[in-house]
Amino acid sequence: MLFRQLFDEESSTYTYLIADRSLKQALLVDPVLEQVERDHQLLDELELTLKYCLETHIHADHITGTGKLRAMTGCLGIVPENAPVNCADGFLKHREILQLGDVIIEAIATPGHTDSHAAYLVNQKAVLTGDALFIRGCGRTDFQSGDPGTLYDSVTQQLFTLPDETLVYPGHDYKGNSVSSIGEEKQYNPRFVGRDRLQFITFMNNLNLPDPKKMSEAVPANQKCGNI
Amino acid sequence: MLFRQLFDEESSTYTYLIADRSLKQALLVDPVLEQVERDHQLLDELELTLKYCLETHIHADHITGTGKLRAMTGCLGIVPENAPVNCADGFLKHREILQLGDVIIEAIATPGHTDSHAAYLVNQKAVLTGDALFIRGCGRTDFQSGDPGTLYDSVTQQLFTLPDETLVYPGHDYKGNSVSSIGEEKQYNPRFVGRDRLQFITFMNNLNLPDPKKMSEAVPANQKCGNI
Repeated sequence: MLFRQLFDEESSTYTYLIADRSLKQALLVDPVLEQVERDHQLLDELELTLKYCLETHIHADHITGTGKLRAMTGCLGIVPENAPVNCADGFLKHREILQLGDVIIEAIATPGHTDSHAAYLVNQKAVLTGDALFIRGCGRTDFQSGDPGTLYDSVTQQLFTLPDETLVYPGHDYKGNSVSSIGEEKQYNPRFVGRDRLQFITFMNNLNLPDPKKMSEAVPANQKCGNI
Repeated sequence: MLFRQLFDEESSTYTYLIADRSLKQALLVDPVLEQVERDHQLLDELELTLKYCLETHIHADHITGTGKLRAMTGCLGIVPENAPVNCADGFLKHREILQLGDVIIEAIATPGHTDSHAAYLVNQKAVLTGDALFIRGCGRTDFQSGDPGTLYDSVTQQLFTLPDETLVYPGHDYKGNSVSSIGEEKQYNPRFVGRDRLQFITFMNNLNLPDPKKMSEAVPANQKCGNI
């Protein structure tokens, strides 16, 4: 398996390129519109055919690269079940599996940041946590269809129940971290350690964060698969 | 072995944390002064004792975190042979090995960006290339003790002769890439592909880059191991 973590500095978004080397087929998770040329060139150089673009959720801070990549490569755009997108080629339910040769991706419904959100477990060794769980943090829950109680349940019941050694690859990082583990986050994530569900809800409801810069542009564009 | 890639956004510098998990001992390669608190906290959380801070070279674009980390942890500061630093605890010669339990680091002299520079081969699987080789790029050669012909020889004779599957972890990246391989760089690095030594020298001598923002501050500070 080939696994590459790619970063968009403007939105601090991680995109993941995952491929079966022998099959020469790849998928991208959470591609960013402004990085499509970079990602497409990398696929070319690695002689990989892009089969799927997966979204963890409908983003509010960047426009997905899926629409453009679909037009360039003919890949399929896949989103979590119930995502408010009518242009997707497929929807993944909780625990549904997408296989690409030796790459096995299992969707784990993890709503709360938005009401449709999936984490993707890769070969049972690493989990792409999108905006549900960050390294020592978590996604915000105060706009779109966010709900802090739902996020608390997703993280504690769906992610923190994975084996401790499962690697955590987040959808964003703002401090230069690239990877963590479930064990580490259970022990050290300050959003969850020492807070019960009610305390977490109160904390998240009082963050008073400004709206993401691109929100008014990104959400409608992403509901159209990034076709702006 | 534990391996963590950490990023400093201001200088686009990658720092590497490498540790023997059972021994609970770690080393850092190219720590950044402004990220010392982050790195120290991570070492604490992972219950790792910092034994060494290694520099690939004397940096001109950021101040090393080694001095501060040495004061905080008692670790040893290690630099490549002939680095113009009189405060280092140790110097690594070409092909010299530093071992930390199951972590075996082999220094590969790769001058050219500066006249003392080492890449570090980790367990013969990954190479930390510092500012000698970037993903689809290379370090500049137009200040301090840089020399383009020497860099060409280092990259083509010392790095491109490693097995193709060796992972390349650079000292910087400016486009959101995190890792590559020797095979990929031999095939696609635009600085080297299709250029012989003389063409490379001419190309590098005509880049006309501005000085790094922190150069006048960083070089003298790094010659004092970051003790500013």
